[in-house]
Amino acid sequence: MEYQEYKGYREYFKELIDTKNLKELKTTISELNVVDIAEIIEDMDDKEMLLVFRMLPKEMSAEVFSYMERYDQLRIINSITDTELTSIIDELDFDDMIDVLEEMPANVVTKVLGNTPANERKLINEFLRYPEDSAGSIMTIEYVVLKPEMNVKDALEHIKQIGMDKETIYTCYVENEYKMLIGFVSLRTLVVSDESKLIKDIMVEDVISVNTLEDQEEVADKFVRYGYIALPVVDGEYRLCGIITFDDIMDVVESEATEDFHKMAAIAPSEDEYLDQTPWQLAKNRLPWLLVLMISATLTGGIIDRYNYIIAQYLILSTFIPMMTDTGGNSGSQSSTTVIRALATGEIGLSDSLKVMVKEMTVGIIAGGILSFVNFLRIVFITKVQLKIAFLVSFTMFITVVLSKFLGAALPLFAKKVNIDPAIMASALITTIIDTVVLMIYFSLAVKLLPIV
Amino acid sequence: MEYQEYKGYREYFKELIDTKNLKELKTTISELNVVDIAEIIEDMDDKEMLLVFRMLPKEMSAEVFSYMERYDQLRIINSITDTELTSIIDELDFDDMIDVLEEMPANVVTKVLGNTPANERKLINEFLRYPEDSAGSIMTIEYVVLKPEMNVKDALEHIKQIGMDKETIYTCYVENEYKMLIGFVSLRTLVVSDESKLIKDIMVEDVISVNTLEDQEEVADKFVRYGYIALPVVDGEYRLCGIITFDDIMDVVESEATEDFHKMAAIAPSEDEYLDQTPWQLAKNRLPWLLVLMISATLTGGIIDRYNYIIAQYLILSTFIPMMTDTGGNSGSQSSTTVIRALATGEIGLSDSLKVMVKEMTVGIIAGGILSFVNFLRIVFITKVQLKIAFLVSFTMFITVVLSKFLGAALPLFAKKVNIDPAIMASALITTIIDTVVLMIYFSLAVKLLPIV
Repeated sequence: MEYQEYKGYREYFKELIDTKNLKELKTTISELNVVDIAEIIEDMDDKEMLLVFRMLPKEMSAEVFSYMERYDQLRIINSITDTELTSIIDELDFDDMIDVLEEMPANVVTKVLGNTPANERKLINEFLRYPEDSAGSIMTIEYVVLKPEMNVKDALEHIKQIGMDKETIYTCYVENEYKMLIGFVSLRTLVVSDESKLIKDIMVEDVISVNTLEDQEEVADKFVRYGYIALPVVDGEYRLCGIITFDDIMDVVESEATEDFHKMAAIAPSEDEYLDQTPWQLAKNRLPWLLVLMISATLTGGIIDRYNYIIAQYLILSTFIPMMTDTGGNSGSQSSTTVIRALATGEIGLSDSLKVMVKEMTVGIIAGGILSFVNFLRIVFITKVQLKIAFLVSFTMFITVVLSKFLGAALPLFAKKVNIDPAIMASALITTIIDTVVLMIYFSLAVKLLPIV
Repeated sequence: MEYQEYKGYREYFKELIDTKNLKELKTTISELNVVDIAEIIEDMDDKEMLLVFRMLPKEMSAEVFSYMERYDQLRIINSITDTELTSIIDELDFDDMIDVLEEMPANVVTKVLGNTPANERKLINEFLRYPEDSAGSIMTIEYVVLKPEMNVKDALEHIKQIGMDKETIYTCYVENEYKMLIGFVSLRTLVVSDESKLIKDIMVEDVISVNTLEDQEEVADKFVRYGYIALPVVDGEYRLCGIITFDDIMDVVESEATEDFHKMAAIAPSEDEYLDQTPWQLAKNRLPWLLVLMISATLTGGIIDRYNYIIAQYLILSTFIPMMTDTGGNSGSQSSTTVIRALATGEIGLSDSLKVMVKEMTVGIIAGGILSFVNFLRIVFITKVQLKIAFLVSFTMFITVVLSKFLGAALPLFAKKVNIDPAIMASALITTIIDTVVLMIYFSLAVKLLPIV
């Protein structure tokens, strides 16, 4: 559904509410997709949202709830009765319930847990203890387990009985008597296999699994790599604890990329959506790096100050400073972005470090050569400076580009090596380093090349 | 599998080849996952790679082939016989075959098409005509079609007969007599439903579909949004032409993010993997923007040159230039990155433009206020400049931050509005604009505030 359609539905719903045509409202909603309903009602005011929400069939309301933004879920929670809340939470898929509880204020969590049976409460608490962003924290406990001795007919019968409550029944997992994961069978294999075949004879034994404590980014890499619909999550003893399904991972792939975008732009990452954050929160996430970078830029000021006697004599020298530092920054961030992203997607690894650095230096020599040649022509024929100064500027430009390409490649690789997030080594930080080095080269060459009175 | 494991297998395979222990080699390979086999053999030399590749069972070799990088696929194609090539291409899933043919040199394509039956050749040519990155170019024609009058038992029987050759049988599509798409049924529903039920009574009629010409980025958005395993692709008359499955979309989500990363770092996007590109290719993708930005930085040089009489008198003024332009660049790229990414993931839309710009200005006022205050204290108490100059620098800093936040938000939104890719409006371009404006403000204020002899 497009933005215009949402707006259309929202206005139509409001009209139906105003004219009290609730029957028509109910019919229209029940034909829509739950994702779309969530989007439509989120922008309504509390009263209207609640009215529409309460009109949904019970199982649908839980689904709609799970697709809403955190902020709007809270609006619902604060307006409905405890009984209604418990019934929604009960209807949620287990992983969605954990998601909701993780983000909710403590009083809401206590309220919900108070209405849950003891054994389930124990399980919920266990799940809430998995580290944030770990496989354990995003897995679900709803999946199909088969025994190796079952035949296909029994397996299908088993699935038919319990199937509709499972997050996914497309991959069924096989456990031995010690509850260890020994294989999987896809529903596709079950459907096309002979009814009398045994599970142990048709299961795939080469199971790709993830550990409960593995980071969700690594889990996402495995999904992208192998293209499975679901991956099993096991504990240290290789016992099946849950599964992660591809639809939850699509969000992870997107939000991990967003996190990298933000880190590379020197912004502290945040879990909240942009529109939900206040200007103060946004400023808080952006100020620390801005401050650090502003203060470290003092270094460059210091260098210029040290050489002010030569600027006093050759004022033209200061006009080339922004061009050189900008080109250094741009060329360095090209390299660092390329390397950081290639590391993140697994296209390159630490073992390629030497190859990457040599390649970036070569690119630097090619690009630096061309840029400084163009620059030389421009400042000799257009700006009309002395040949000596043109040479000084163009030579510094060449060194700047080569150096920035090298640092842009080397710093993220170094960060990865010492287990720092490479994304932090992005343009902002590299720019500051390059500025400092470039200015030092520029002025110390100037002192050597130009006659000083 | 981790990097170390790949390396281990590669060495083990080489050892087995050297000691001519091919039986053991065959057994080991057949137990591995096809994705891993592709990764292991890609780094071998031509002879070894071919030896291992030829040892694979026929259907497995096609799968391994489909997971290899373009460059390594070409290595295989150039070493095997035409008969072998035809047999591999025949075994590929239809969408993988199209993928391979799209990237291969013309002589290879001619070779393959020459060995294909006429009707299939026609279909292949039709698919090759879909625009690059369109839904049509990534869809597959292998899917299950059901008729509305079938019952569940017949449907399952039908799937059992043809199922194994389909890319996915988990979502089955229902067509009416005009071949128009009227609904879908998941295999899950089929498996848990009563055998006598009719498809038309259990199918979902609210089908989310994409058009053949839709961009793959929009397709990916729909997948992330609705979390389906597959989406149907229809033509202008709503006839089913193919389906796209989630595993192909995971790659799209990742590569679209990579493309944005590169564009934002002023790099022309490339389809090839980093390690497959020569330094010349890399330089070619990076030089155009570097040149444009270098030359546009001349503007800043011109401004400094115009005010060189005031620099001559107050040399200290030039020492603050890098700090101010860097802070402007950093703060602008924070905003542009945030806005570009939020636009790309659909978190904000054009309708939020005003809200976003006001929010960024507010952030700019908060951050700019704090930064310029810190800066004021620093240069008064540490650098010990005159109060007038401290005020000049700090005030310019404040304006710089507010302005860069505003431009960082406004330029990508404007680009979106006039249908240019917002990612182009990223740090590099914004930096150049901000530098120019900031220097103009700085010097024109300086002329007003400072006594000139």
